[in-house]
Amino acid sequence: MTSAVSTTEHQGTPSLSDGLLHFPTSSALKLEPHLPPPRPSPSPTITTTNSNPNKKPFVTLTFATSLDSSLSLAPGVRTTLSGPQSKAMTHFLRSRHAAILVGVGTAVADDPGLNCKILSPLSSSPEGVGNGKREQHPNQPRPIILDPSARWEVSEKSKVIQLARLKQGLGPFIFTAKEVGEVPEERRAVVEGVGGKYVCVEGLKVKGEGKGEGATSRESFAWADVLRTIKEEGLDSVMIEGGGSVINSLLALEQAGEQELVDSVIVTIAPTWLGAGGVLVCPPRAVGRDGQPAPPVRLRDVSWQPLGEDVVLCGKILR
Amino acid sequence: MTSAVSTTEHQGTPSLSDGLLHFPTSSALKLEPHLPPPRPSPSPTITTTNSNPNKKPFVTLTFATSLDSSLSLAPGVRTTLSGPQSKAMTHFLRSRHAAILVGVGTAVADDPGLNCKILSPLSSSPEGVGNGKREQHPNQPRPIILDPSARWEVSEKSKVIQLARLKQGLGPFIFTAKEVGEVPEERRAVVEGVGGKYVCVEGLKVKGEGKGEGATSRESFAWADVLRTIKEEGLDSVMIEGGGSVINSLLALEQAGEQELVDSVIVTIAPTWLGAGGVLVCPPRAVGRDGQPAPPVRLRDVSWQPLGEDVVLCGKILR
Repeated sequence: MTSAVSTTEHQGTPSLSDGLLHFPTSSALKLEPHLPPPRPSPSPTITTTNSNPNKKPFVTLTFATSLDSSLSLAPGVRTTLSGPQSKAMTHFLRSRHAAILVGVGTAVADDPGLNCKILSPLSSSPEGVGNGKREQHPNQPRPIILDPSARWEVSEKSKVIQLARLKQGLGPFIFTAKEVGEVPEERRAVVEGVGGKYVCVEGLKVKGEGKGEGATSRESFAWADVLRTIKEEGLDSVMIEGGGSVINSLLALEQAGEQELVDSVIVTIAPTWLGAGGVLVCPPRAVGRDGQPAPPVRLRDVSWQPLGEDVVLCGKILR
Repeated sequence: MTSAVSTTEHQGTPSLSDGLLHFPTSSALKLEPHLPPPRPSPSPTITTTNSNPNKKPFVTLTFATSLDSSLSLAPGVRTTLSGPQSKAMTHFLRSRHAAILVGVGTAVADDPGLNCKILSPLSSSPEGVGNGKREQHPNQPRPIILDPSARWEVSEKSKVIQLARLKQGLGPFIFTAKEVGEVPEERRAVVEGVGGKYVCVEGLKVKGEGKGEGATSRESFAWADVLRTIKEEGLDSVMIEGGGSVINSLLALEQAGEQELVDSVIVTIAPTWLGAGGVLVCPPRAVGRDGQPAPPVRLRDVSWQPLGEDVVLCGKILR
């Protein structure tokens, strides 16, 4: 409860952020075994080499729930579950990933900033030396929004766009299904104006509501396609943050045991019960390769670290 | 992972238990602030005085869930969620309460033993001195089963009856609604034969399935009546263990803020997701005194203690 979170005013530049965050080194060290390799310092003169030869990026699945596994009180209701230390941790984790990913539901409901507000640890970096300023972290992660049907009406008012314009974050990569066709030109211009882009990914029709002629279907993605595309974009690590359907679909795939997608799991749990009606992390029961119900997803190599009133669980999926 | 659990064979007497459990003193000390006052050592010559002058017993709500707040994979399916250390902790907690309480659903589904298998800590007690035997804990808790409709077909084969007959536990107190009338004589004989009894409590009709003429109703209890009855039976502390409907009804009452029933909450969380279809701890959303949705139940003074692969959360309800 000491100086885990501190805020500062930005001088000169307008800021959408509510201050830079500090995450104690002691806490960061405990997370280290669960993180991808450190990212290279950004430098315009050195081309970063691809340090991860795999076909997929390092995937960290991370989110915060209540004791009854709710992400929020209801769909579209942003709910502050965890304490300030947990928020600082989230931003520290973002600094350690090349990309952060959310589903379109989260983008529409929360208008998230998807940037990293942690203080720069590089006091010896050219930007940091001697000027006494508290520096934004140089390693901003790339925001990725999974929007198969291109329904997110991103605009100049969207927080992620405003932050990118202020150089407090990167322009978003928005993944849409090839089958959806062209997105409206004004949206494309907004996204590309801040260095982001629309990225076409092979789509998947999945069954929606209803049956027979009245049945609907919706566009979706196969996770393998999404992760391969992220890797092809030169992004070696991705932190998957939500929302509920994104998390549950990943956990269900892991339960089925057909694909090994998630490298690390970091869950923050707040000591509260939100009660019935919340957005749950609770994957559908998957069937294994043998056609029988698959055993539940379990974590191995777990660590539990109290953080303020919350606890942070780190682990790997037991396969 | 060291000697948190040890087993031993009982010589001479048949045993239903799968061995006595050991719970390390260091772990027990961490739980101490969350427990009722120590129970007096049992002695036939001293009448225990009532150390708790309140109208209700000290209430500890305790259970183990998955990360997605499931108690079990499905109703009636006994699911081993937590590790051996957590089991030892449960039995240590039982040794510290005058009574343990479960709903009839748990009694029917699990046929629970509801006794305390922790080793006696009283190495200087008359029973323990010099004989080298590993002793059953002298403070067995009183099993209480909430069975408003008297539907539990308790018999000589029920585990709780067998354990009581072996002096490895106490005879159960079965709470039924006054309105249900007499229970079958053979059940009463079984229960009273091991020192237990049926206890009549004021019943409550609650709405069941359906509407209009087809609507059903079922017997239930008001928690205040249940707790007052426990106190009147001379039981100063009770550990409420489950199942889902018992836990959810208590949490919903606490959320409504009308009654302060629970003194301590101890939840064990195992690092697994059981997935959709489980028996959830997820209270219905309660309405506050002002008719508005009440804020979620939150814990204060929390502690998180890793225990094997699990974590144990202790706290008090924030009011």
